[in-house]
Amino acid sequence: MTRGDPSAGSAEDRLIARHFAPLARHPGALGLTDDAAILTPAEGSEVVVTVDAIVAGVHFFADDPPEAVGRKALRVNLSDLAAKGAEPAGFLLTLALPDATTDEWLAGLASGLQGDVEHYNCPLLGGDTVRTPGPATISITAFGMLPRGSMVLRRGAKPGDAVLVTGTIGDAALGLRLRRDPDAAARWGLDGAMRDHLLARYLVPEPRNAVAVAVRTHASAAMDVSDGLAGDLAKLCRVSDVAAEIDAVRVPLSPAARKALAAEPAVIETILTGGDDYEIVCTAPRDKVAAFQTSCSGAGVTLTAVGRVTAGEGTRFVMPDGAPLTFAHASFSHF
Amino acid sequence: MTRGDPSAGSAEDRLIARHFAPLARHPGALGLTDDAAILTPAEGSEVVVTVDAIVAGVHFFADDPPEAVGRKALRVNLSDLAAKGAEPAGFLLTLALPDATTDEWLAGLASGLQGDVEHYNCPLLGGDTVRTPGPATISITAFGMLPRGSMVLRRGAKPGDAVLVTGTIGDAALGLRLRRDPDAAARWGLDGAMRDHLLARYLVPEPRNAVAVAVRTHASAAMDVSDGLAGDLAKLCRVSDVAAEIDAVRVPLSPAARKALAAEPAVIETILTGGDDYEIVCTAPRDKVAAFQTSCSGAGVTLTAVGRVTAGEGTRFVMPDGAPLTFAHASFSHF
Repeated sequence: MTRGDPSAGSAEDRLIARHFAPLARHPGALGLTDDAAILTPAEGSEVVVTVDAIVAGVHFFADDPPEAVGRKALRVNLSDLAAKGAEPAGFLLTLALPDATTDEWLAGLASGLQGDVEHYNCPLLGGDTVRTPGPATISITAFGMLPRGSMVLRRGAKPGDAVLVTGTIGDAALGLRLRRDPDAAARWGLDGAMRDHLLARYLVPEPRNAVAVAVRTHASAAMDVSDGLAGDLAKLCRVSDVAAEIDAVRVPLSPAARKALAAEPAVIETILTGGDDYEIVCTAPRDKVAAFQTSCSGAGVTLTAVGRVTAGEGTRFVMPDGAPLTFAHASFSHF
Repeated sequence: MTRGDPSAGSAEDRLIARHFAPLARHPGALGLTDDAAILTPAEGSEVVVTVDAIVAGVHFFADDPPEAVGRKALRVNLSDLAAKGAEPAGFLLTLALPDATTDEWLAGLASGLQGDVEHYNCPLLGGDTVRTPGPATISITAFGMLPRGSMVLRRGAKPGDAVLVTGTIGDAALGLRLRRDPDAAARWGLDGAMRDHLLARYLVPEPRNAVAVAVRTHASAAMDVSDGLAGDLAKLCRVSDVAAEIDAVRVPLSPAARKALAAEPAVIETILTGGDDYEIVCTAPRDKVAAFQTSCSGAGVTLTAVGRVTAGEGTRFVMPDGAPLTFAHASFSHF
């Protein structure tokens, strides 16, 4: 356990105390001075738990600003909570840090986290800090709360349900392409604002926690889109034992993504399979779609119907002429 | 989130399913096919959460048997739950793995975990698997349950309380010395069984979960000994705003540690500050000590009174002639 006692003896303890104790104001964190933290669910509620790790050079660039790294590490987990319909309740932070980690980098990481702790009302509860000869690795376990039995599963989509997605798809994957190939911005005819939009969507996700209650009220199944819409929807359909047909032209795209797609039609694969969207893909009975959309809209999030659940298996993205899209790689995988 | 659907498409999903889905029989794990898991505390109980990470080459040797690595990763967390008086309820597993990780290594890791899942009744609830260019890193978040308000804190020791420790101290630190310096076994006059005892205590901790209920019934403050008895007790005293005086000769030692100490008196520093003990150091009012010891004894764990809590600050280890021991390094620290 992280030890944050400001008067404690070791350099590790002092480091933790200086940077991270200010993020741990929740009483269950015990000021980061204990071996464990306490989560006390309200009567009738249960705890949703999720963990995601990000590694320098794999999930973020080693020279990304540490504030952005901290936000990404927390937000990829907040996105899971949002998709399950849970409200954030706190998180544990595990840092594996190289010897060369600077105090400035840690201060930046803590600063990025601090902003999100407040914005998402998700306090630091504890953690662990270890040394590694490898790259900086940040693993966060996030806790959410919701009324007992109300977690929205991947399992639950029914034939006849609509398929819906929040926000816009593909921006982060295009942003990653721009990081690796800055000339693409000119080839795609992007102006500065469009380029910055795509880069920002890759650097720091915008999880849809604002619609968590709407999701658990209306959705029959949901997950967050982290490994690409095509692959993630396929997973949802598989555990729900259904198929889905998506109208490719109804997948919501930002102006920047539309422009890139117009200039280079092949980026449709990047958009639909690239990942890092941190939007929510979900299903809902047809008669709930309007209320679901109104509820999301009231929270400032667009929810777009993109297709329908059918009996059978498999997911198809179809063009207006009925031709299906095929992808070389349906989903991001580490192995 | 780890995805364990056996029919899922990616190599990552299949890997997870094959090795880890059998560890995830708890309904809240949702078969590792969802973004998150569900913890449902019983009425009147609360959740204790803790996280600890271990890194190849730092916390374990890269050539340690993977079964032992899996056990160590889980048990260092189970030890925190035991010291807080909580009963294990499940865990999340985050693996950062190098490309060179073999299927055999993963099978061994899962096999080691499987045994402990059953022995400690602590199911796998979910996790994440990522690729790293660095060493294998295993981070586990463990959940414990206990009646609301009954978690034993580091804070709570009172002047007049006895200081107690479970089991024996120093074995793991001596075992680590034997790993680095095999000739020490002969210098210390250890027989094969003694040497194996010390090596085993380093390789795989024996957390004291059997006495969790006794700890929360009797202890005024407690923590697990992971960074050395001297340094960890100092932390407990600091947050309790008390001092402690320990009779060095009453610190419980195994026959192997006694033999090493007799041959090389300087190993007293390794024994008292070396860490990796995963015993419990705690305090209890004098009038509860006998019942506390009887309760632990009934669970097969020796609980030894080693000193007393006093007013003031600081911890002193004193010899029978009243001379205090001093240490070059009071506690293990990563930084």
